[in-house]
Amino acid sequence: MCHIAGMTAPLRFLDAASALLGPRGLTIDPELVDPWLTDWRGRFTGRARALASPANVAELAALVRLCGEHGVPIVPQGGNSGMSGGATPDQSGDALLLSLRRMNAIRAIDTEARRVTCEAGVVLQTLHEAAEARDMRFPLTLGGKGSATVGGLISTNAGGSQVLRHGSMRALVLGLEAVLADGQVFSMLTPLKKDNRGFDLKQLLIGSEGTLGIVTAATLKLLPAVAERVVIWAGVSSLPAARALLLHCDDSAGEALEGFEVMPQASIDAVKEHMPQARAPLEGRHAWHVLIEVVADRAGAATLRDACEAMMADAFEKDLLDDAAISASEAQAEAFWLIRETVPAAERARGPAVQHDISVPVEAMPAFVEATAPMLEAEFPGTEAIAFGHLGDGNVHYHVIAPDVTDGHAWNANEGKAISRRVHDLVTEWGGSISAEHGIGQLKRDELARLGDPVALSMLRAVKQALDPQGLLNPGKLV
Amino acid sequence: MCHIAGMTAPLRFLDAASALLGPRGLTIDPELVDPWLTDWRGRFTGRARALASPANVAELAALVRLCGEHGVPIVPQGGNSGMSGGATPDQSGDALLLSLRRMNAIRAIDTEARRVTCEAGVVLQTLHEAAEARDMRFPLTLGGKGSATVGGLISTNAGGSQVLRHGSMRALVLGLEAVLADGQVFSMLTPLKKDNRGFDLKQLLIGSEGTLGIVTAATLKLLPAVAERVVIWAGVSSLPAARALLLHCDDSAGEALEGFEVMPQASIDAVKEHMPQARAPLEGRHAWHVLIEVVADRAGAATLRDACEAMMADAFEKDLLDDAAISASEAQAEAFWLIRETVPAAERARGPAVQHDISVPVEAMPAFVEATAPMLEAEFPGTEAIAFGHLGDGNVHYHVIAPDVTDGHAWNANEGKAISRRVHDLVTEWGGSISAEHGIGQLKRDELARLGDPVALSMLRAVKQALDPQGLLNPGKLV
Repeated sequence: MCHIAGMTAPLRFLDAASALLGPRGLTIDPELVDPWLTDWRGRFTGRARALASPANVAELAALVRLCGEHGVPIVPQGGNSGMSGGATPDQSGDALLLSLRRMNAIRAIDTEARRVTCEAGVVLQTLHEAAEARDMRFPLTLGGKGSATVGGLISTNAGGSQVLRHGSMRALVLGLEAVLADGQVFSMLTPLKKDNRGFDLKQLLIGSEGTLGIVTAATLKLLPAVAERVVIWAGVSSLPAARALLLHCDDSAGEALEGFEVMPQASIDAVKEHMPQARAPLEGRHAWHVLIEVVADRAGAATLRDACEAMMADAFEKDLLDDAAISASEAQAEAFWLIRETVPAAERARGPAVQHDISVPVEAMPAFVEATAPMLEAEFPGTEAIAFGHLGDGNVHYHVIAPDVTDGHAWNANEGKAISRRVHDLVTEWGGSISAEHGIGQLKRDELARLGDPVALSMLRAVKQALDPQGLLNPGKLV
Repeated sequence: MCHIAGMTAPLRFLDAASALLGPRGLTIDPELVDPWLTDWRGRFTGRARALASPANVAELAALVRLCGEHGVPIVPQGGNSGMSGGATPDQSGDALLLSLRRMNAIRAIDTEARRVTCEAGVVLQTLHEAAEARDMRFPLTLGGKGSATVGGLISTNAGGSQVLRHGSMRALVLGLEAVLADGQVFSMLTPLKKDNRGFDLKQLLIGSEGTLGIVTAATLKLLPAVAERVVIWAGVSSLPAARALLLHCDDSAGEALEGFEVMPQASIDAVKEHMPQARAPLEGRHAWHVLIEVVADRAGAATLRDACEAMMADAFEKDLLDDAAISASEAQAEAFWLIRETVPAAERARGPAVQHDISVPVEAMPAFVEATAPMLEAEFPGTEAIAFGHLGDGNVHYHVIAPDVTDGHAWNANEGKAISRRVHDLVTEWGGSISAEHGIGQLKRDELARLGDPVALSMLRAVKQALDPQGLLNPGKLV
């Protein structure tokens, strides 16, 4: 009897869900479900009882209520391009995998008010193109823009290379709609610049990784299109020198400064190996390479290039860099960025490495890398510690590359965890974050529990318990 | 026995609190306590068993634990300059009134990293002066700056006249420290530009009006000092015309546009009556007067005035305004602002009125005022409905002025509530907020319960219950 009951309950749930969503909205076909059960980097694989793709908010709300009645966990998934396994279900097979791909309408673009309202399933690239078609732009971009969805970007408070000026996703969300654990719809899409009716529930849902609610739509900030941009490539002798250059550019370019990325010479070498047709902007070798992006909309376009040239001449005079190249065309600007964007793939191609997405206060990052890289290389002989990324945000991707080993997977399994623990310990000692922009997901959940401030952790758990008492929203993630 | 027990419990609490805080930290002297039992506008008066002024976070944390043991409610109070009675205890006399005036250290100013760490008791004016002394500025200001404290500003997510560019307090807090209901200290003062370790607990505490925790210190954003500013006074024929001028200025000045305030002719007349030495910037009468502030730091100072003159010449050519004056000196800029800042006092001096602090989407505000003011004046014969304030934020202060009555208090008591309900109904119909920048406090608690989205209200209550299960933090406020 018990066994039969155990068998029929899921069937009854699937029947009800199928009746609710129809054949397009629910499938158990392994060919359709399996591709989404492993994260894109292949680090996590789970099982699911079905893949649900509701057509609208009302269907999703009814589905969530149904899941509540049957005690079925829900794992929401956007573009499956996350870095922390936050959208991959566990091995139990209990969970329903949820995709919002059918909810992909751009409901409205208002260029005068500079905003767009779109559904969670809209892909970032699509949003970029829709904004560009109206001579606007959405100022957040990242490597996975061809698959990452608005819902996933909001749920993970995504970052990227324009956070320096425009902030992460949190700063770009003007209004939000979400389905809560009890199936109620939180509806605050209307953008109010000032609203003090209590603490900010939108901000609570942003970055909650689907553990407090399922984002279904958002009103997002747009900006006037970039009319002119200048990308500068500079060579400097150290990270503190890069930081001094950053301060100079910040003072000189002010709000026009949109990106400030650093890469060590080793990463440039890796890019050249990975993509032989790439041409390095500078002929010489430099301890650190810096990519600086400065942009202007129509109003400032005419003077931008002169201002950038003056800024760099001034930097030379102040001895803030060793060499620099200023992009002469948009094609060259893109070529500079391509090198930066190829670093992650080139680094992965170099061989096995354990990777970390960390932040410390912006001004502390140079000292952090200079102090900890030799320490890690000494403690784990044969490894090489390298950092690259968003120096302007105090956020680098910190890789510890394996010694010349024959079995990278075995090395990673044996040494990787110890190395990561050490990196996370060091970041925590420096007052930093073990997840700057990739979130916690399942990858860093234990580390957050180990190293997170106990007071903050108990707040996270209390809020989670209050808003999802059954624990059905993305269980096993974050907290 | 029962009576004696009732008497001794508070005494035991006061003895313990007194032992903890010492004579400087706790008083029951009515001369010292009573001034803080009424809000500055005289609308709310309460009672308290004592006034506590702990010297540091550790003392406050111990005090909160003691309150928890004895079931004593705590009412935190900053500068007592709030508009919604959020810092005034109820009539029961059960509550302990809490002041953080002794915690008023500016711990550190870092001009390179552009931030300041200060304690909750620091007065806004003091913070402004400390920043100015270092050639920096803190970009939030409001009428009560001489008394409002950092703790109060954060707890209420204060706004003011620079929100247009810099956002409200929420956007300026980089790090936060607070004592929670269980006496634990939430400590996230270290500013991380990117941090995705779960949803943002700082943002949860900001704007929670002391109901989730007591803010004790913060790391706040600073900006380079203003090197040059131009204040423009324009006369326009309607609010939609003012909005068209706003869009023009936004396009033309971009990030340099810091303020866009509107006032009807009636408010200008009221200012002239209230402050006879005031000189109106424009000689003629205009349906609406607009104050526009444009600023530049050192980098942009040289070209600011020319840019403003070109912007206004262009506006004239496009027929976007009827008349305008551009400040020729800093003294004149201040004189322009003085008129704007005198409007609230001048309006109060005109006679009894019911006041509302409301917002709708920025682009909808002109139509909202044009549609609702005649409606209110018809429904409440003899009244005059006027709006002034932050058009650039979609936030106006909306006053309904009493007919020529002999007893303003009686009118307010009889008619005021009905008028406010009507205004709030209309704002809600238009998708707006019944509290744009003044918070809910006790003034608007019933209205929030009546008109708030039920889903949002249940989230607010669930989070409150989770983080303050005894309900001792600022009871009777917000939710």
